[in-house]
Amino acid sequence: MTDCPFCAIVHSGAPATRVFEDERTVAFLDIRPLARGHTLVVPRAHASGLHELTGDDAAAVFATAQRLAAAMRSGPIAADGVHLVVNDGRAAMQTVFHAHMHVVPRHRGDKISLAAGIATRRRHDAEQAGADVRAGLPPE
Amino acid sequence: MTDCPFCAIVHSGAPATRVFEDERTVAFLDIRPLARGHTLVVPRAHASGLHELTGDDAAAVFATAQRLAAAMRSGPIAADGVHLVVNDGRAAMQTVFHAHMHVVPRHRGDKISLAAGIATRRRHDAEQAGADVRAGLPPE
Ligand SMILES: [Zn+2]
Ligand SMILES: [Zn+2]
Repeated sequence: MTDCPFCAIVHSGAPATRVFEDERTVAFLDIRPLARGHTLVVPRAHASGLHELTGDDAAAVFATAQRLAAAMRSGPIAADGVHLVVNDGRAAMQTVFHAHMHVVPRHRGDKISLAAGIATRRRHDAEQAGADVRAGLPPE
Repeated sequence: MTDCPFCAIVHSGAPATRVFEDERTVAFLDIRPLARGHTLVVPRAHASGLHELTGDDAAAVFATAQRLAAAMRSGPIAADGVHLVVNDGRAAMQTVFHAHMHVVPRHRGDKISLAAGIATRRRHDAEQAGADVRAGLPPE
């Protein structure tokens, strides 16, 4: 998929702050995070949306998201809660048509709105935020 | 789990508008929908949150959510897009501590905000909405 920005990250070395990868999935920071450490989990295999995502890849994406949610709670991100979100289709605010799951850490008292356009999405220190997500992962 | 409202639906016949079930999962309408047809997918086995959800159950929940997303697009709900959302932990607005995935149909031009407290959540005609989700499912 020549024009897919997530395929470019997965297969062509496009820049991204990677936090985890395994056989089927790659996880990297969202460049417009809703919260520090906001991560996207994508299947290595291109799938434009949920309807193209195979069962094995769906299961792998969810498993990686679970792992990252645990890392965000136990590691330096110190999340009190986590959202997992898939926006499927333009009407659901999908903007990159390579299926992905958002993993968004929450803290008690934060003021995140999950609605696009209401939330202030700004760049954080990606390197440190990525390191802080990774630091919560158990040794492989 | 005596006091778990979702276990009561799954195991004890507590009232709910069921839209789908299989070996590992049960799906029923959210009683405070963000949109008509808003459905929750739960594992039959109690798990308070993501950390207790087994890999098999996580995969099954996601597979059921994918199936329902497709049904909402192709059936009478006529969704243009779908959100899949897991709110894990009180700080992420989890209110029932039996892990569940929201499947929320979207339509172009609707005004859903996914932030609790901003969205107007009101009762719809549950019977008809449930029938409309089910009507999009392929024959088993
Ligand atoms: Zn792609
Ligand atoms: Zn339960």
